[in-house]
Amino acid sequence: MLYAQVHLTLPAWVHDAVDGAAVFPGDEDKVGLAIALSRRNVEADTGGPFGAVVFGPDHRVIAIGVNRVMPHTCSLAHAENMAYMLAQQRLQTPRLNERIGPVTLATSSQPCCQCYGATVWAGIDRLLIGARAEDVMELTEFDEGPLPADWIGELNKRGIEVVRDLRRDDARAVLKHYGESGGDKY
Amino acid sequence: MLYAQVHLTLPAWVHDAVDGAAVFPGDEDKVGLAIALSRRNVEADTGGPFGAVVFGPDHRVIAIGVNRVMPHTCSLAHAENMAYMLAQQRLQTPRLNERIGPVTLATSSQPCCQCYGATVWAGIDRLLIGARAEDVMELTEFDEGPLPADWIGELNKRGIEVVRDLRRDDARAVLKHYGESGGDKY
Repeated sequence: MLYAQVHLTLPAWVHDAVDGAAVFPGDEDKVGLAIALSRRNVEADTGGPFGAVVFGPDHRVIAIGVNRVMPHTCSLAHAENMAYMLAQQRLQTPRLNERIGPVTLATSSQPCCQCYGATVWAGIDRLLIGARAEDVMELTEFDEGPLPADWIGELNKRGIEVVRDLRRDDARAVLKHYGESGGDKY
Repeated sequence: MLYAQVHLTLPAWVHDAVDGAAVFPGDEDKVGLAIALSRRNVEADTGGPFGAVVFGPDHRVIAIGVNRVMPHTCSLAHAENMAYMLAQQRLQTPRLNERIGPVTLATSSQPCCQCYGATVWAGIDRLLIGARAEDVMELTEFDEGPLPADWIGELNKRGIEVVRDLRRDDARAVLKHYGESGGDKY
């Protein structure tokens, strides 16, 4: 018989780690939360060193994601993908900014090729990034995969603003700790 | 309280439509099944006009996927992604060909930018494609999104062979029917 159901979860600690009523007004505040989640995910041994948060126009959290690839044996379960799916289930729409707007994704590291593609369809207006792809590759040996040469321009064309290097040193510190601790690379 | 669980399903009809013991020896046989699933998904009104199948080295089905974006309000729920996630849960590995090999994905249409990225990480050795991206855009107005200029070469570099235009006319016929029927475009 075919498998016909996929069930993906966030770790139980997220309910204590995120305050749904809190406001994260600035871009650095938003990426700061994504980085804090990436750090906690490593400390709790619940997945890889990546975190992401979807914010609504009121600067409050709609959904979060952390990397869950190894716990769920699922190469799709990257932090950004988890955040997009959970935000879409919460808002009951496959394109987030058709329901409310503007919608922002903050991520601890630049999206890999898979999450880059997911970002094109998820319905966001702003993409806020901590560490760069080269940081991820330097510090953890994770491959970020092939992107369009002008990956930022392609997002801009589709109405998505990109801001990089937000709390980059903080994001790099989590990646460095993970790389030196011998965590899984996949 | 945060949403912390994602649950994605295939339609109930897949259990009647796919014989797990059947052998699909040739590339056209494999893509033929993916196209049949794409057609059935439209006829049953259970999602968009896309189907995909993961095959093992014995040419039998490991997992299938059909587009479930609208039923699950989830932009990640493309046919290829569903097939990868279900195959990885069945084999209990996030990289399919570390468990068995070679692994093949057959898809009714060229993967969009999101499923292209997912293909890089899923652990497949061969990618078999029915309709081209330009067929999808011509016949359904679905956007396929930005890809690396040499998207096939980037997959080849990572050990993934790409074969296109398998039963392309059959795949185009399903897309044409969907486009003319006024189905959702997202």
